Amino acid sequence: MAEKLTIVKVGGKIVEAPDTLARLLDDFAAIPGKKLLVHGGGRSATQLASRLGVETVMVDGRRVTDDAMLEVVTMVYGGLVNKRIVAGLQAAGVNAVGLTGADMDVIRSVKRPVKEVDYGWVGDVSRVDGDALARLIDNNIVPVIAPLTHDGHGNILNTNADTMAGATACALARHYDVTLVFCFEKEGVLLDENDSSTVVDRLDRARYASLKSKGIIVGGMIPKLDNAFTTIDAGVAEVVITKASNLCDLSRGTHII
Amino acid sequence: MAEKLTIVKVGGKIVEAPDTLARLLDDFAAIPGKKLLVHGGGRSATQLASRLGVETVMVDGRRVTDDAMLEVVTMVYGGLVNKRIVAGLQAAGVNAVGLTGADMDVIRSVKRPVKEVDYGWVGDVSRVDGDALARLIDNNIVPVIAPLTHDGHGNILNTNADTMAGATACALARHYDVTLVFCFEKEGVLLDENDSSTVVDRLDRARYASLKSKGIIVGGMIPKLDNAFTTIDAGVAEVVITKASNLCDLSRGTHII
Repeated sequence: MAEKLTIVKVGGKIVEAPDTLARLLDDFAAIPGKKLLVHGGGRSATQLASRLGVETVMVDGRRVTDDAMLEVVTMVYGGLVNKRIVAGLQAAGVNAVGLTGADMDVIRSVKRPVKEVDYGWVGDVSRVDGDALARLIDNNIVPVIAPLTHDGHGNILNTNADTMAGATACALARHYDVTLVFCFEKEGVLLDENDSSTVVDRLDRARYASLKSKGIIVGGMIPKLDNAFTTIDAGVAEVVITKASNLCDLSRGTHII
Repeated sequence: MAEKLTIVKVGGKIVEAPDTLARLLDDFAAIPGKKLLVHGGGRSATQLASRLGVETVMVDGRRVTDDAMLEVVTMVYGGLVNKRIVAGLQAAGVNAVGLTGADMDVIRSVKRPVKEVDYGWVGDVSRVDGDALARLIDNNIVPVIAPLTHDGHGNILNTNADTMAGATACALARHYDVTLVFCFEKEGVLLDENDSSTVVDRLDRARYASLKSKGIIVGGMIPKLDNAFTTIDAGVAEVVITKASNLCDLSRGTHII
């Protein structure tokens, strides 16, 4: 039977504030066995952009990335946020290595074609080198992946961290028994968004369709869950949607099956 | 006999301008066999600091690194400059991985003690994990090292790139027949600094002492050459000081023996 691998995706909000970052690093360090972290960093990028007089333009929740914004996200995601996490994990005894998709060519993407919107230097993941990542992981190294990829022609591309986590989980499902954890601001998928005791413990496609049709699952949760079901179809053993502060107990949250 | 490894250290000036960077990437990609790159990025750090209203303070050519400046160098060295080089090398067919000292704990340092000057978050290299770097290199991965290290307690430290290149060369001399190349603005050590035809082809300790006593070798060249002789004593086969644009022909420049 394949060895267990836990892939955690955590958003910018958690990794950008010193107190929530410290808690996350402790909880992530405590996860037993092989693991990998994918992080965001959007809030810091917006802050730095603002300080530099670079305007932040979002379309459907995605950042339009012109030359100036590409510099900002390369600095913030690949430098500031990624290296702080790596240094913090090293201090917690986790042998982390910070990677973008360009590093060791682990995640390649294609610049998003211009349709109604020109997103600029934004990439859609085309290939994850699971073998290269598995070689690191088998050497007890923990990859910490920033939401940047490359096109193989020298261009860095701003890339959605949820999608990267999903694609990475799929590529590593050939090597490991993968649990993919999306850290979320709430306890999981809630039947009543104002009541954290209404977490949906287990969610299969039938129940997902039913909750969508009733308008209980809406908005930004839908692409997240679609992404989760896609990874399950691709061989990922389990997807968990949970609160970052519950990372120490993965029996909580919503389990996609 | 040990396999050959070429370690190239290149300063900020070369890697920050698009045209000189493109030339460097081509020349570096053309170096046969195993290799490793260490880069600077000071000019970009100063520029970004200025745009952010962070004052740059240099003492004896070294950057004083307070909290705000540490953020700047982490973004510029670890993010912007490092990832541009990595993406560029990938496009040139070189399987590069960008690293700071924190990544895989490859280079650890100690925060510089406060004496006459408090340099802030500046580190002096204490240990290079040559085994970890050799494992990458033996897998045909090319480390691209940014001038940042960590103290093992979660702190990133701004670190001199020349020193990092020297310490890395020493640590890897146990694994490979190492040539360490310092790219420089001039053709090498010059007898007449205004005449590039006066390159000192070979420099041993006796001639170095003589040229220093005559005032021909002065200023910033002295710590660079001291560093070079230290690495030779530690088992590095050869140190070359040359112009970045001569990287394609390492028979040129000054050879420290």
